[in-house]
Amino acid sequence: MTDAPRITPRTLKGFRDFLPEKMIPRERIIETAKRIFRSYGFAPIDTPALELIEILKGKGSEETDKQLYEFADKGGRQVGMRFDLTVPLARFTAQHFAEIGAPFKRYHIATVWRGENTQRGRFREFMQCDFDTIGTRSLASDIETAVVIHDLLRTIGFERFTIRLNHRGVLAGMLEKVGLAEKSTEVLRALDKLAKIGPQKVTEEIVAAAGATAEQAQAVLELAGIQGTTDEIVRQLRTVLQGNPHGLESADQLAALAAATQAAGVPSERLVLDVSIARGLDYYTGAVFETLLDDLPGIGSVCSGGRYDNLAEMYTKQELPGVGASLGLDRLLEAMTELGMIDEVATPCEIFLPYFDADRLHDYLRLATRLRAAGMRVELYPEPKKLGHQLKYADRKGFRVAVIVGGDEWSAGVCQVKDLASGDSETISLDAASRGLEKRLAALVTRTPEA
Amino acid sequence: MTDAPRITPRTLKGFRDFLPEKMIPRERIIETAKRIFRSYGFAPIDTPALELIEILKGKGSEETDKQLYEFADKGGRQVGMRFDLTVPLARFTAQHFAEIGAPFKRYHIATVWRGENTQRGRFREFMQCDFDTIGTRSLASDIETAVVIHDLLRTIGFERFTIRLNHRGVLAGMLEKVGLAEKSTEVLRALDKLAKIGPQKVTEEIVAAAGATAEQAQAVLELAGIQGTTDEIVRQLRTVLQGNPHGLESADQLAALAAATQAAGVPSERLVLDVSIARGLDYYTGAVFETLLDDLPGIGSVCSGGRYDNLAEMYTKQELPGVGASLGLDRLLEAMTELGMIDEVATPCEIFLPYFDADRLHDYLRLATRLRAAGMRVELYPEPKKLGHQLKYADRKGFRVAVIVGGDEWSAGVCQVKDLASGDSETISLDAASRGLEKRLAALVTRTPEA
Repeated sequence: MTDAPRITPRTLKGFRDFLPEKMIPRERIIETAKRIFRSYGFAPIDTPALELIEILKGKGSEETDKQLYEFADKGGRQVGMRFDLTVPLARFTAQHFAEIGAPFKRYHIATVWRGENTQRGRFREFMQCDFDTIGTRSLASDIETAVVIHDLLRTIGFERFTIRLNHRGVLAGMLEKVGLAEKSTEVLRALDKLAKIGPQKVTEEIVAAAGATAEQAQAVLELAGIQGTTDEIVRQLRTVLQGNPHGLESADQLAALAAATQAAGVPSERLVLDVSIARGLDYYTGAVFETLLDDLPGIGSVCSGGRYDNLAEMYTKQELPGVGASLGLDRLLEAMTELGMIDEVATPCEIFLPYFDADRLHDYLRLATRLRAAGMRVELYPEPKKLGHQLKYADRKGFRVAVIVGGDEWSAGVCQVKDLASGDSETISLDAASRGLEKRLAALVTRTPEA
Repeated sequence: MTDAPRITPRTLKGFRDFLPEKMIPRERIIETAKRIFRSYGFAPIDTPALELIEILKGKGSEETDKQLYEFADKGGRQVGMRFDLTVPLARFTAQHFAEIGAPFKRYHIATVWRGENTQRGRFREFMQCDFDTIGTRSLASDIETAVVIHDLLRTIGFERFTIRLNHRGVLAGMLEKVGLAEKSTEVLRALDKLAKIGPQKVTEEIVAAAGATAEQAQAVLELAGIQGTTDEIVRQLRTVLQGNPHGLESADQLAALAAATQAAGVPSERLVLDVSIARGLDYYTGAVFETLLDDLPGIGSVCSGGRYDNLAEMYTKQELPGVGASLGLDRLLEAMTELGMIDEVATPCEIFLPYFDADRLHDYLRLATRLRAAGMRVELYPEPKKLGHQLKYADRKGFRVAVIVGGDEWSAGVCQVKDLASGDSETISLDAASRGLEKRLAALVTRTPEA
C-alpha cells in the first residue's frame, strides 16, 4: 500500500475542517447554550441527517429546494440531507405527538446542509442551534424566549447587545386597516429591506410589488417609522392602529412582553421595540425577535425568532402553535473573534507536565492523576525529549502553566511551577497532604473565568 | 396550504429520532466523555459529513465501501457521507500537518453513516466517539489510552468492568516464529472468532484459510490460550516466544503497560492481559484494547482501540504512528438501560414551577429567575391552567420538585415545596435574603449525583 499513488488530502468545496483553535470556542458556546436551554426546561432531541424527500421538498423556500443535497439511497428511496431544523421539528412533533404532548419545549443543535453559492462566503455545511416551545399560545412563552436570548448572550460573554422586538400583528393590523392584507408577503418583503435601501425605495417597491397606492404605502412606512421608548412606541401604535382590533391587541401584547421581560430581569435598554422588523419569513404570526450586537451591528442578527401559528400542518391536523429562536453560531463566533473575546488556543488543558526524567514515568503518571483528581486538566508529554523542545510545544499549544519536575526535583520532593505567559517560575512542594501545588495551580489557571 | 394533502410524518428506514428521554442520557455521556478527554489534553476537531469519494473509497473494508452513501453533488463531484472518523482523521492530519504538528491529541464525536443491513438490528446513522494520539511511538501514549478508557467508564458510572489488553506483536512474533507471518490476516481473522466458535474450529479455519499445518495452527492456539495473572502471562509469553525478538519485546511492552497503568491509578483487576484478543482490523500493530462490562459481557466491547504504525499513508509520506480508542455510545447506553443506570426523564430540569395565579405572571418570572441565578434548573408552566393538570404534566415529564405558589402563598410570602416522588410537601418562606428556599431545593434535587 505504501507504494500506491497518494491521494491529495482535501476537503470538498464549501466544507470546513475545524481545527482545535476553532473547535474549542465552538464547543464552549454550544455547551453554554445547552446549559441555558436546560435551565428553562428545554429538552434535547435529535433527528436524522437524512429525511425522505417528500418530507423536505417544498417545506422551505424555492431557494432551499434548489440547494437540497438529494439522492437515491441503495434501496431506491429518494432522500435528502436536512437543510434546517424546523422541518425536522415539524415532522418529529407530528410523528411523536402522542408521546411528547404539549407544551413541548425542545432544543436541537445539529448540522444542516445547503448547496449554497460559496462565492457569497457561505458554507454548505453549518450548525443550527434552535429552541422552541410548541403547543401553546401563551404570551409567557414569548416572554421566556426573549429571556432565554438575553441569558444566552450574557452567559456567552456579551454585555452590549439589544434584543429588538416586534409583533407581526401590528403590521398585519395596519395592512388590514389600509386594505393591503392580501398583499402582506410583498409588503413584508419590501419592508425587510428598510435598513438597507431606505424608506423611499421601500415605498416604491410596495407600490410596484403589492400594487399599492402611494397613500397605502405611506401608512405602512409611517407605522414602520415609529420610534421612541417602549411607552412612546406603544402609545403611537395605539393611535395609528385605531379601529383595528387585531393591531391594537398586538400593540398591547408588545407592551406586556416588554414589561414582563423586565420583571424577569432583562434590563430595559437590552430589549427595545422596533416596529420596522418584519423578518422575511411568512411563517411568523406574532412576536418576532432579532438580536444585534451594539459593537458590531453590521454583522446582523445573532439570535432571531418569533411566534408561529401552525408548525406542522403539512404532516398533521393537530394545530401546533409555537414560539422559538435560533442562535447564529457562525456569526456569533465571527463577532467574538473580531471583538477579541476569544483566546485562540490549541489545547483544552491549562497545565502542561513535561516528561523529562525518562526513568520516572510512573511518578509523572501518578502526579498527573493526582492533579486531575483535583479537577485540573493536565497533559503529560509522551516522550522524554529535551525540556526546551517540550516547553516550545506547550507554548505553541497555549498551555498556561508548566509543572516541571526533573531528577533533582523528584529527589527533593518539589516542582517548578512556571507561568508560561509571564515566564515566572516558583518552587512548590510536591507533598500531597499539604495540597500546596493544587492551590497554587488553581490560583494560576483561574485568571480568566471559564464560560 | 391547510387544504393540501398531508404527508405521513415518518423517518427513513434504519434512522432514528431521539426523544428527550433518550437524548438526555446520550448528551450526559457525551459531555462526560468530553470532560475526560479534555482533562488529558485531547482537543476537539470536526470534519465535514461529506468527503470527496476518492478520500473515502477503498479506505475502510469491502463492507464499508458497499455501505457508502454515495452521490454526485450539484457540481457533479462524486461525494460520500463519512462512514467512520478514522478516514477523516487521516485526511485531516495529512492536510493540516504543518499547523497541528506532533504529538497531536484529538477527540472527535460525530455522526457517521453506513447503509447497513437493518435486519441485524443495526442503524444506518450512529455516533462515533474517538480519541487518538498521533505522531508518537511512545508507550506513554498507550498507557494513557488505557487510563483514559478507565477514567471514562468510571466517570460514566461503571464500577464492574475490565479493560482487556493485548499486543499485536506477541501474535506477530509467534507467526514469524512458526513461519506464518505472510498469512497474518487470515490467522487473525480466524483467531478473532475464538470466543464464538472455540479452539477446534479456529484451528480448522487457520489450516484452511492460511494453508497452515496443524502444528503451526497449534502453536498459534497455544499462544492465544495463555491465561493467568499479568506476571504469569508475561512469563509464559517469554517462554513460547523464545528466539523471536519482536515477540519478546512486545511481551515486555505488555508488562510495562500493565505496571504503568496501575501506577496511574487503574486497579489491577480492571486491566487484564488477554492474549486471545486480535481485533479484526489489520490496521493495529501494537497494543490493542477491549473493554467488557462484567455484568453484561455478552454485549461485547464498549470501548476498543489500539496502536497503529501509519495513519495516513494514503495521503502523505509523513509517517504518522498513533494510538487511540473509540467509545461505543449506542452499546454503552443499551447496557446502562439494561443495568438500570438510567433514570428516564423527559426534562433536563429538576424544579417545576406551576403558573396558577394568572395575575402574578411577573412574580412567577421573578421567582424563576432568582432560582436560576442560584444555579437551579426551573421550568415555569406557560399557562395558568388548573394545578392538577400542571402537576400531572410535571409528573409525566419527571420533574423532582414543584414549587407551588398560589394567591394565598404570594400574600403570605411563602411557597409549598412538593417532592413529586414522595408527595411530601412543606411550607417554605419566599424571603430572598434568608435563601431558605434555595437551600431546601438544593437538598432535594441533589439526591442523586449528576454525571
